[in-house]
Amino acid sequence: MKPTRVSELFGIQFPVIQAGMIWCSGWELAAAVSGAGGLGVVGAGSMYPDVLDHHLTRVKSATDKPFAVNLPLLYPNIAEHIETILRHRVPIVITSAGNPATHTQHLKEAGIKVVHVVSNVRFAQKAEAAGVDALVAEGFEAGGHNGREETTTLCLIPLVRQAVRLPLIAAGGIASGAAIAAVFALGAEGAQVGTRFVASAESSAHQAFKQAVVQAQDGSTQLTLKELTPVRLLKNPFFEEVQAAYARGASAPELQTLLGRGRAKKGMFEGDLVEGELEIGQIAATVKTIEPAADILQGLIHEFDAAVQALNRLV
Amino acid sequence: MKPTRVSELFGIQFPVIQAGMIWCSGWELAAAVSGAGGLGVVGAGSMYPDVLDHHLTRVKSATDKPFAVNLPLLYPNIAEHIETILRHRVPIVITSAGNPATHTQHLKEAGIKVVHVVSNVRFAQKAEAAGVDALVAEGFEAGGHNGREETTTLCLIPLVRQAVRLPLIAAGGIASGAAIAAVFALGAEGAQVGTRFVASAESSAHQAFKQAVVQAQDGSTQLTLKELTPVRLLKNPFFEEVQAAYARGASAPELQTLLGRGRAKKGMFEGDLVEGELEIGQIAATVKTIEPAADILQGLIHEFDAAVQALNRLV
Repeated sequence: MKPTRVSELFGIQFPVIQAGMIWCSGWELAAAVSGAGGLGVVGAGSMYPDVLDHHLTRVKSATDKPFAVNLPLLYPNIAEHIETILRHRVPIVITSAGNPATHTQHLKEAGIKVVHVVSNVRFAQKAEAAGVDALVAEGFEAGGHNGREETTTLCLIPLVRQAVRLPLIAAGGIASGAAIAAVFALGAEGAQVGTRFVASAESSAHQAFKQAVVQAQDGSTQLTLKELTPVRLLKNPFFEEVQAAYARGASAPELQTLLGRGRAKKGMFEGDLVEGELEIGQIAATVKTIEPAADILQGLIHEFDAAVQALNRLV
Repeated sequence: MKPTRVSELFGIQFPVIQAGMIWCSGWELAAAVSGAGGLGVVGAGSMYPDVLDHHLTRVKSATDKPFAVNLPLLYPNIAEHIETILRHRVPIVITSAGNPATHTQHLKEAGIKVVHVVSNVRFAQKAEAAGVDALVAEGFEAGGHNGREETTTLCLIPLVRQAVRLPLIAAGGIASGAAIAAVFALGAEGAQVGTRFVASAESSAHQAFKQAVVQAQDGSTQLTLKELTPVRLLKNPFFEEVQAAYARGASAPELQTLLGRGRAKKGMFEGDLVEGELEIGQIAATVKTIEPAADILQGLIHEFDAAVQALNRLV
């Protein structure tokens, strides 16, 4: 896999980005992916400021390669997180879930490359206007929080490609080198991989959650809680509770009460597969093994080459 | 675009299949696509038996290339349709929306190639067991009726590819040669194109509906009526009526009453963009022109070659 504008922007070998995923992507995973030539990402959304500080200290001692922090812009202590990011001289920040106009210039003035995650064309154009350096365009099949238009990766990438000039990273449904070839054919210059890295040795997901991911089949996930923030979940007893609440006509505040606090930590980090909220992508149905992150990345590169060679035989 | 198992099975030049779409795909469109080297498909689902008879007579006089009929297996007069298909010696039948075990052997004994449309792995395995010759695997982004698992094309193709050995045609979200390269990278050997051919000169869609398709943007369609049969519709006043019914807690029978009869014809064939049901895929957001079907097909082939060449520069 040759360099693209995305790998050049980040100063990495392969334009493969590990998604920043709450409760699953701490310093071990980020260091493993960056060490193998991709872009490792520390997911700050589930971390208190002192926890983020700890993870940034560790990731920097584990690798001298570039890495990133994923920063949900709706995070309540965002000023503290940004202070921590600046203090650690984090080279790349991937922002999501909020308005990119608020913090992009501040981060860029500190020499940080800023990437924003979008789910539609309008947000892509807003992010470009805010001065971000690159975009992640994430489709409906992605795990976790998700766009309201429900535009799939296959439809979203050509739309965003046509609308903006920025380096473009595709996300949602990518767990193989063949899928990287697919999104590159559509105009992406980088691929973000989440679900596959949840089921990695270095992921901070609980072992029980990793096992649930590799046992998922087609139809095992669904986008739900659309009245709050749409989120793709693995169907477990908690998910069924949400569906039962819908069936009896629960209001948004009732759904919020049912969701409560700490469900995601309980499920993904503590391994409570009954009561926990389990965020994962549709593509989990294709993930069958838990491997070291470096092996996953190497496999993606080999599969990408093989997929392009196979396509070559068709022209 | 070189031959694949799909083009060889059908005896056509390019493994590009025009979707059989109610009210949009009569003999003119099928003849134009088949004449240009793809597989044209007459959509029988919206036709009375005498209408299907007329369209088959016309398509055969317009082209001597192979063509197909799309046959929804839940069609009420299916025995009459099958009799018409046999009498006209239709070479290929694409069945959908029903159990492939019921009619596949009967059709195959008459020398007909049988293809079945599926939206999940289980249906793919059932169709393989029923003896079909090939599969269409259709993702969540497709227009019209759609699977309950909401699996997107990017996720569905690798899953079905892994589960069955049959020649595999991808559908849903494909309106460009780049998207054909994408689904071929994932293991498909043919691509079905629907939405793009709705906006063709030869489509029997009403001109007002074609114009609505080329004006669609991201977020203009949504999968709805999931309690009946999930269907992806263009958001118009009728769609908003359906959403209002949901908001007041309408039951499935109430939704059925609201849907009523003849809504699809009214919208897509008669051009009533207010009261009509407008079935179209998410990828409509990328379709900006109404062109002759042969030009569309030629464009897809050129774009496919260009996309593979561009991928080649990345390995």
